Amino acid sequence: MPSTRDLAAELGIARNTVLQVYEQLAEEGYVHAGVGRGTYVEDIRQDLLESVEDGAEGEPVAAQLEAKHDLSRRGRRLVSSLGFSNRQAGAFMPGVPDVREFPLKTWSRIQNRQWRSGPWDLMRYAPAGGYGPLRQAISDYLGSVRSVRSTAQQVVMTTGIHQGIDVAARLLCDPGDTVWVEEPAYWGVRNLLTSLGLRLVPIRVDEEGIWPGEAERVRPPRLIVVAPSHQYPLGMVMSLARRHMLLDYARQVSCWILEDDYDSEFRYNMRPLSSLQGMDEAGRVLYAGSFSKTLCPGLRVGFLVVPQALAGAFADSVAELYREGNMMTHAVLADFIREGHLGSHIRRMRRRYAERRACLIEEIHRHFGDALDVVGGETGLHLILALPDGVDDTLVVRDALQQGVVTRALSAYYAERANARPGLLLGYAGTTPDEIRPAFDTLARVVGAYL
Amino acid sequence: MPSTRDLAAELGIARNTVLQVYEQLAEEGYVHAGVGRGTYVEDIRQDLLESVEDGAEGEPVAAQLEAKHDLSRRGRRLVSSLGFSNRQAGAFMPGVPDVREFPLKTWSRIQNRQWRSGPWDLMRYAPAGGYGPLRQAISDYLGSVRSVRSTAQQVVMTTGIHQGIDVAARLLCDPGDTVWVEEPAYWGVRNLLTSLGLRLVPIRVDEEGIWPGEAERVRPPRLIVVAPSHQYPLGMVMSLARRHMLLDYARQVSCWILEDDYDSEFRYNMRPLSSLQGMDEAGRVLYAGSFSKTLCPGLRVGFLVVPQALAGAFADSVAELYREGNMMTHAVLADFIREGHLGSHIRRMRRRYAERRACLIEEIHRHFGDALDVVGGETGLHLILALPDGVDDTLVVRDALQQGVVTRALSAYYAERANARPGLLLGYAGTTPDEIRPAFDTLARVVGAYL
Repeated sequence: MPSTRDLAAELGIARNTVLQVYEQLAEEGYVHAGVGRGTYVEDIRQDLLESVEDGAEGEPVAAQLEAKHDLSRRGRRLVSSLGFSNRQAGAFMPGVPDVREFPLKTWSRIQNRQWRSGPWDLMRYAPAGGYGPLRQAISDYLGSVRSVRSTAQQVVMTTGIHQGIDVAARLLCDPGDTVWVEEPAYWGVRNLLTSLGLRLVPIRVDEEGIWPGEAERVRPPRLIVVAPSHQYPLGMVMSLARRHMLLDYARQVSCWILEDDYDSEFRYNMRPLSSLQGMDEAGRVLYAGSFSKTLCPGLRVGFLVVPQALAGAFADSVAELYREGNMMTHAVLADFIREGHLGSHIRRMRRRYAERRACLIEEIHRHFGDALDVVGGETGLHLILALPDGVDDTLVVRDALQQGVVTRALSAYYAERANARPGLLLGYAGTTPDEIRPAFDTLARVVGAYL
Repeated sequence: MPSTRDLAAELGIARNTVLQVYEQLAEEGYVHAGVGRGTYVEDIRQDLLESVEDGAEGEPVAAQLEAKHDLSRRGRRLVSSLGFSNRQAGAFMPGVPDVREFPLKTWSRIQNRQWRSGPWDLMRYAPAGGYGPLRQAISDYLGSVRSVRSTAQQVVMTTGIHQGIDVAARLLCDPGDTVWVEEPAYWGVRNLLTSLGLRLVPIRVDEEGIWPGEAERVRPPRLIVVAPSHQYPLGMVMSLARRHMLLDYARQVSCWILEDDYDSEFRYNMRPLSSLQGMDEAGRVLYAGSFSKTLCPGLRVGFLVVPQALAGAFADSVAELYREGNMMTHAVLADFIREGHLGSHIRRMRRRYAERRACLIEEIHRHFGDALDVVGGETGLHLILALPDGVDDTLVVRDALQQGVVTRALSAYYAERANARPGLLLGYAGTTPDEIRPAFDTLARVVGAYL
């Protein structure tokens, strides 16, 4: 390379500028320079591959390489069984609350109050288990409304049900272990568990809830994932007898139960049932919840309540695996709960959703009389419009979507095609009666063509 | 059970109240009732276990059960190798920025502007890939400051480096596959990958960066995780020659490279180097970044930039596996970047951190002269104070912590004890010079006792 003095003169620029450029080139490895010895271009053609082509261990490298595809096997499986939708609003998107009713003013007021005080400690990584005052507020709240028995130390903050199941599966199950999931079930849980290398056994549900057959019972799983308050998507409540059986079984075979307390807050004809966790005397139940349905999904705040013996391991592992933070949101939520806003928001939404549910059922009866059954409408944010056997519900969903109406096919929630029943999941929570009526007129025309 | 009429009369309460209680009991499964046939207590003693004790498949159930422990093997391994700390502030916590310098006023102003407009769509689950305008803002920003070549579609929002590595490992690696990690490396990455069932091969680094030996090169991994801009924790920059070798190797053996562009923003003597991704002609590099160091960890906003061929699979899989949201934060950040606030904040902090770094180095020289080497101080938010061979750095860390000074032992970052060198990671970013001087006085006394 020319000397810095020569190059500066040639280009008519300051020598300092050239020096900085040479230093940058040296730092990036393009040149090397020694004091008083000039600057030389680096040989950057060294080849890491010199010995790859031979293969040292018998197996030819080429054969190793041919077996590689772009995605892993579990990656290909995941991508070919995606269930999520980018569409998150409108009639009749199931599984979402009405975010337009989010108490923005109250929330903002609390948030501004906290931000004014210079909340530096809230801007760091979260400590093990999450923000302490929120863990305490959740423990208190769940004790009073869900009969969950816990201390704040047993409450471990997550970003939602997915992360709760993810950490439970890693801490409690090794690749190849068996997990029972309900049949049908939320596809997201199935895909998550499968991508962790677990073997899923779908267990049928009847009107009382999960009901493992004898062939299944003799091969105990490591983990059972259930939604006793509101089976998803069928909507039934697990009977007390079934709850006792499940708890006894878990105790005797020493497996774990993950209770997804889905939509327990939204019951229209009576108070919510108490939780499975609250009945558990043997410490085998992990209780998972979130604020995605009671407040809004975008918050990404959920929690696990784990048995005392696991509390430290779960709190530490969430901190280690996910490096969570988000405590600015957690601090607002803690005050929001403690000041009673969560309870009153849920009560208000329960009334609102009950009206919408009644409106949808009225529309169903107006169009179809008793020709089509309504399943699972007593709780939650959706109901199922059962379709006659033989109807391909995925085609109905497709046709409805072309008319701008979002539904989901019940059959898609079954792991095994042979078990699948046809039906449509209709979410009513995110829609007002004025939106429900015209949307159902459209849907009824689409469904009618298949009857 | 007594009739509702009799019980109401007996207790002197309204019959409606008793009816509601009976309905609740029936719903919970404690009683069953028929119209005009009275109400009866349910038999809830059915036993799911009737056939468990026999064992159907040869292996006695008891033997299956004895093999079960509370945690899985990978869970026990994780819990026994935790690296995180609940302490996240004070001299000399490494790996954290000074959150007290977070531009709270600017951030709040943008946030309040957005919240006033009723940001309902931001409160839902995020669409595949995340919030579009933020993906575009990041693509533009990385193109100009990091030579990253991407479209917005290649940018996939995550909650940070951990989630980026998590989804990459699931989509690109099956349990049992080999991953190369640098030796030494950030323990969080090692624990995360191990908990996904992957086999880690630690690859030594020299002053030019990662340097696989022949025995390693003939067994190509599925994935290589490197931090070329700032090796963590040693702090060197990967040489250009090494970058070319790594890219050629990945292309020829068809493995993937995950580039953790750690601390690339904070270099004190020259401009940041361009990214490995920007040199990649074969589409083998995934670029991972976050705003944890440039803004604050608590935000939980990070991203992957993936090759075009993988963009759809990654965007969809993040949505499926984690059900992300947090778009209220994403929308603020998008404006924050587009309006130039990120760039000016980083420039401001670079000057601030350079002063603190100079102060710490001055303190080191004042106490130890040239007796102890300073390693990796040219970039990042920490430096390493090398200790003489034979000193147990974990004891120094323990003693310093008892005096209220946080450090981390360099030896703890090595996967294999035989490779470990003793030293102390000293973070200076989160401390002012006024905090550095007395803390280093304390630390110098502790270290002196081991020399």
